[in-house]
Amino acid sequence: MPECPLIQIGHIVSPYNEQSGTPIQASFGEPLDAEVHIYPDFREGLTDLDRFSRIWLISWLDKSTSFNLKVIPYRDTVERGLFSTRAPRRPNPVGISSTQLISVDIETGILKIKGIDLLNGTPILDIKPYAPRFDSHSEETAGWLDKGSDAQTADDRFSNKET
Amino acid sequence: MPECPLIQIGHIVSPYNEQSGTPIQASFGEPLDAEVHIYPDFREGLTDLDRFSRIWLISWLDKSTSFNLKVIPYRDTVERGLFSTRAPRRPNPVGISSTQLISVDIETGILKIKGIDLLNGTPILDIKPYAPRFDSHSEETAGWLDKGSDAQTADDRFSNKET
Repeated sequence: MPECPLIQIGHIVSPYNEQSGTPIQASFGEPLDAEVHIYPDFREGLTDLDRFSRIWLISWLDKSTSFNLKVIPYRDTVERGLFSTRAPRRPNPVGISSTQLISVDIETGILKIKGIDLLNGTPILDIKPYAPRFDSHSEETAGWLDKGSDAQTADDRFSNKET
Repeated sequence: MPECPLIQIGHIVSPYNEQSGTPIQASFGEPLDAEVHIYPDFREGLTDLDRFSRIWLISWLDKSTSFNLKVIPYRDTVERGLFSTRAPRRPNPVGISSTQLISVDIETGILKIKGIDLLNGTPILDIKPYAPRFDSHSEETAGWLDKGSDAQTADDRFSNKET
């Protein structure tokens, strides 16, 4: 692995300032306005993005500073292996959020988005276009999630206050 | 951003040893057998994963050591903004590959998978379950990709030999 390789290209401006109450997944987000602010050095790379209706935000979940290999996920009541969950506390807390893209302003670096599961200030590492041909697989079997609860917002079980 | 935060949890064992000829996206991969080898410290986290038919592999594309903000993507003939493409050379070369999961052996840490777009030896940062409710959005507009070429394998345009 290369040394210290991460570069922050921007951050989230969202209504969510604490984990409790934040949507578990971007797809479950209330249609609240949120923004991604991309820093000047990277704005040229936003060209052509405005013609996509959905994007992947690759984020660094910087509030997640430790992890357990077994967790009780939001949508279940028993312990599951961490890699069978989307819990935010992971060895590498990289978030992948598919969110609706409303507008792109290349000059200011501001993307308006809807449906977000990320806390205000979360560092953004990358943006990729959502491409149904690559990313949409509707007929998959989703293990314990297929019978999970209907919980759609987080409580504080993955805050760093817990052990 | 935290200092030097990335942890390699495993690596890919795949038939692809060079970029040219490797599928552009995991969904376009030949149904060749490939494996993910997860290191001992992280294997307990694989519990419950075997009941998912598809997973996200979050990888560090370690052969991508530089980037340009405008690129000619595989599926097009004109320059596009980097963040409107899935080109591997990015400020943070994080790959997201949705791949079919065939089997999980927690004891040896070996996952057998089908349909992979990753080079042999690529470091793995995270595994997440693919969940259609979160991840599958089939009706999206995909910008220039909607009229892109049908190219499904890579040439060497994103190798580090090019400028």
